[in-house]
Amino acid sequence: MTEQNGTRSGRRPGRSGTREAILDAARVRFAQVGFDKASIRSIATAASVDPALVHHYFGTKQELFAAALELPLDPAVVTRQIAAAPVEKLGETIVRTVLTVWDSPLGVQAVAAFRTLLGSGDPALARAFLLEVVLKDVRPRVDSPPGSGARRTTLAASQLAGLLVMRKIVQLEPLASMSVDELTAIVGPTLQRYLTGEL
Amino acid sequence: MTEQNGTRSGRRPGRSGTREAILDAARVRFAQVGFDKASIRSIATAASVDPALVHHYFGTKQELFAAALELPLDPAVVTRQIAAAPVEKLGETIVRTVLTVWDSPLGVQAVAAFRTLLGSGDPALARAFLLEVVLKDVRPRVDSPPGSGARRTTLAASQLAGLLVMRKIVQLEPLASMSVDELTAIVGPTLQRYLTGEL
Repeated sequence: MTEQNGTRSGRRPGRSGTREAILDAARVRFAQVGFDKASIRSIATAASVDPALVHHYFGTKQELFAAALELPLDPAVVTRQIAAAPVEKLGETIVRTVLTVWDSPLGVQAVAAFRTLLGSGDPALARAFLLEVVLKDVRPRVDSPPGSGARRTTLAASQLAGLLVMRKIVQLEPLASMSVDELTAIVGPTLQRYLTGEL
Repeated sequence: MTEQNGTRSGRRPGRSGTREAILDAARVRFAQVGFDKASIRSIATAASVDPALVHHYFGTKQELFAAALELPLDPAVVTRQIAAAPVEKLGETIVRTVLTVWDSPLGVQAVAAFRTLLGSGDPALARAFLLEVVLKDVRPRVDSPPGSGARRTTLAASQLAGLLVMRKIVQLEPLASMSVDELTAIVGPTLQRYLTGEL
């Protein structure tokens, strides 16, 4: 963490450099206006850098969001697998896909990011990430009757979040040691009911 | 928080006084050996105070644990209501009782304590609290087939924890604004299935 030299005129000086300035601006912007409305351009302006530099450092806007949340992987890796599942298999697919990532070596950093977000993070950032990235594609697929999709997906998110809290943060046994197969068989139907069942 | 005068010989000096010394010792002890094995006497010894003083300040061991976790109420208030419910009503009773407390004025401090525990707290403390205080009385009541009680109660805890995370910390809508009645009707059956259904 060194003081910048200020060779790029107009760029905000900061002890953590350009990359951190972009991430700081992204966190503020995503929390303030949400993922959809936060443009790369507006984040670049807030960080006093060229938009091309944001793309150069972070890739897509979704990858920038993942970096701002200190997630170890592009959420598209997970959301693509969920998008490929038929509606009647969403429950088990979501449980299996998410638990598999969290149990992988990448999961350690995901747990750390999740702890930070729950403990001291800005709830608006978590909300924007869940509503506009994680749940966005599933919501219209389970919107039956019309208007129920938001309720259905946030209920599913509650079971999944609790599973991650108890398995990876609190490490409550025997839950923490149950296999992905076993948890998929037991918790998959809960998510499926929230997503497509009678509520 | 003033420096103690040291009139009680042998008591550990500390900037936060006797009460904080007892709470610190309690947190260490509960995390190390669990709730059941942590005696008031051993906590008093670690804090270099008389056991009677621990009772004087905090009441029962369960109340001391609640204070160590910075919970705003004695968990017995909740566990007694759950104990009074018949097994086939446990799901809805647990959801309704816990949500009602968390939505009450006391809930603000409970949310803060929960955030601290998830963010930077000792997972062993959370485990001891859940296994030996919160889930203890329910476990033998749902232990059918024998040996399944621990799995059943930790699964139920996962749904409940996720509901609290999404409703009270992340404040995800529409989940955060749904009424206790509505959530009891939807999420109660999930807990009931985990506690008494086929898994």
